[in-house]
Amino acid sequence: MLTVAIQPQSELDTSQGLSGIAGLRGAVVRTGVKPSGALDLALLVAEEPMSAVGVFTRNAVAAAPVSLCRERLASDARIRSIVINSGNANALTGAQGFTDAERMIETLESRCGGPGLVMSTGVIGVPLPVDRVCDGIERASESLTDSFEPGVPEAILTTDKRVKMASTDLRMQRGTFRVGGVAKGSGMIHPNMATMLAVVATDAPADAAILRPMLGDAVDASFHEISVDGDTSTNDAVVLLARQPWTDAPDLTPSEREAFEIAVTRVCRSLADQIVADGEGATRVMDVEVCGAASVGDANAIATSIACSALVKTALAGGDPNWGRILAAAGNAGVALAAETVALSLGDQVVFRWGEPAPVDAAALRALFAANRVAVRLDVGMGEAVGRRQTTDFSKEYVAINADYTT
Amino acid sequence: MLTVAIQPQSELDTSQGLSGIAGLRGAVVRTGVKPSGALDLALLVAEEPMSAVGVFTRNAVAAAPVSLCRERLASDARIRSIVINSGNANALTGAQGFTDAERMIETLESRCGGPGLVMSTGVIGVPLPVDRVCDGIERASESLTDSFEPGVPEAILTTDKRVKMASTDLRMQRGTFRVGGVAKGSGMIHPNMATMLAVVATDAPADAAILRPMLGDAVDASFHEISVDGDTSTNDAVVLLARQPWTDAPDLTPSEREAFEIAVTRVCRSLADQIVADGEGATRVMDVEVCGAASVGDANAIATSIACSALVKTALAGGDPNWGRILAAAGNAGVALAAETVALSLGDQVVFRWGEPAPVDAAALRALFAANRVAVRLDVGMGEAVGRRQTTDFSKEYVAINADYTT
Repeated sequence: MLTVAIQPQSELDTSQGLSGIAGLRGAVVRTGVKPSGALDLALLVAEEPMSAVGVFTRNAVAAAPVSLCRERLASDARIRSIVINSGNANALTGAQGFTDAERMIETLESRCGGPGLVMSTGVIGVPLPVDRVCDGIERASESLTDSFEPGVPEAILTTDKRVKMASTDLRMQRGTFRVGGVAKGSGMIHPNMATMLAVVATDAPADAAILRPMLGDAVDASFHEISVDGDTSTNDAVVLLARQPWTDAPDLTPSEREAFEIAVTRVCRSLADQIVADGEGATRVMDVEVCGAASVGDANAIATSIACSALVKTALAGGDPNWGRILAAAGNAGVALAAETVALSLGDQVVFRWGEPAPVDAAALRALFAANRVAVRLDVGMGEAVGRRQTTDFSKEYVAINADYTT
Repeated sequence: MLTVAIQPQSELDTSQGLSGIAGLRGAVVRTGVKPSGALDLALLVAEEPMSAVGVFTRNAVAAAPVSLCRERLASDARIRSIVINSGNANALTGAQGFTDAERMIETLESRCGGPGLVMSTGVIGVPLPVDRVCDGIERASESLTDSFEPGVPEAILTTDKRVKMASTDLRMQRGTFRVGGVAKGSGMIHPNMATMLAVVATDAPADAAILRPMLGDAVDASFHEISVDGDTSTNDAVVLLARQPWTDAPDLTPSEREAFEIAVTRVCRSLADQIVADGEGATRVMDVEVCGAASVGDANAIATSIACSALVKTALAGGDPNWGRILAAAGNAGVALAAETVALSLGDQVVFRWGEPAPVDAAALRALFAANRVAVRLDVGMGEAVGRRQTTDFSKEYVAINADYTT
């Protein structure tokens, strides 16, 4: 766990993702799986196998590619190639889904070298058009060049409106490296992951034992803090790749390790921010901070209850500072709470404390709720623990997007 | 717990609520608390104190009237009069809220006799205009006549579009009685109650010890099965009143008790049905049944996860039989589940079993999802337990209603 505050994110570059990572190449292709004919398949191929760890969905009906990734990263934490297809999630597709995902990996490894991984996103419960996809892998592999293909962030999108990229420099005693990542996701976004795929990679050297806790902490502080619709998808996956340690190189020093974790966390946090800002139908983002809770679990439960409340999210859509709904949602978290000890602020305005409403400037409050970003802070008054969630509003457009997204 | 199936509801009368209960009178008035000037206060007054029990919200920040009701029904399970005001929930209103609720009861008892109860529904976090409300209690008490005021179901509504009433005959060996009830609620509707008020009364004799488990079971099988928006309000309350037992009358026989519980459950279930059908912005109702679960808790957790999924509810709004979202939501319930053992049906069509999608008639499936009422049945394949939830769709109108409902 990080003990220092994350530095200001001024040095983050959101115009580049994986393109600056030494030794990593990418390629993209159109397979026709997306009815629109858009880019829908990306390859990532490293010069030689990289250290690799992953965090995956906790959904009980995880998709075939997720199960395969879990198995592979458990038995051999090294990866040389990844194929990501969009438009079909290969989820709830039975034994055929596993066969199809395995065939994708076989095709990938034979063309690009292994060990390989497969990630899929898109519609659930529809058999994967595996011939088209494998043909796409072959064509993409032929188009690999020494320069990184800039279409990768686009080729992994589904209902997203914008590509998500972030990268930063990682300065360590042994040299300066690059950490970068790409992500997709705008629906089924909820703590414990989402229809959300992210690949973060670095040319800095580290083995899986170093990377695993680092990714866990980084995901807790980023992707696990965001919620768009309260649904956790069948396909969520975040993979972190790093150059394998050089033989005889000294272990990372504590300060090197800290710099490493800060860089990974900042990239993950930026990608998570970009996901929530691109949430389906989102017109506004709410940052929920719950402090003064008896435990981190309590703080997160209360923050989640607020961030997932349909009534809070529709009030946010309407720009309506209906703070009664926020407190009612907090009261539904299944956590002991007393109206007498809580204090609720919207932006810089305290709206409730000492068991009763505080006098407010109604016009200022309304202006605050009409902004693109709304800060909600609830002090529970019971302890020291803090939890955070970011969420989007439930707009009419959210309904339109999800009522019409085809099966 | 009931061991017999609930009889078909043909004898239920939804055109009457409390009006046929011997000895119970009602009155209504406009206090001006509702900006529209609609009816917003109702009194229920019995000839003499009745046995009374209640079930209340589990929200940690319950409103003042809920706290007062809990206290009063715990210390003395008899009630002679009830005041219900709509337009202001007197929730999150601090010490003043308690003072105001107590003043409402004092006014009620001095005019109509006690013990009295108070129930409030409407906007949260706004001080109650208590002078207006108490003036309304006085005026309403003056208008009490021998006939039951038909405006009672209307006077307790907030965002509801329709009044909710149900009544039925209760035939016991000792005579035939009437069980009837009124309810309100269309938002903040979620298991463990909702911004939902219901009063069910009967002229049949029973003491609180008989009524308490009866109401608990009836609520579990009705109001606790419905979800509109996943939010549990600060003010939920269901109160059951019965004539006090005659002195020296024999105890209820087992068959009388069963008839009694069936009648109360049928009235509660009808009121719950009416609430969900009038859910905010609802264009369609989904009946979720989860069977074959290892425990009732598991079955209910899975059913709730499906019924509360924004993605399932928006698919329902779009008439889109996107069953992958239903299985994904089931997988998010925090309950062990295996795709290989589940079977999912929409209406009479099996869409998923043996770990894979079943061949379906796509046109029939779409027609089924375009109906007013959609049945979803998930067999978990792990045991014998069953759980049910009814829910509504998330429509654009739902968003419009809740984005604009004023603070």
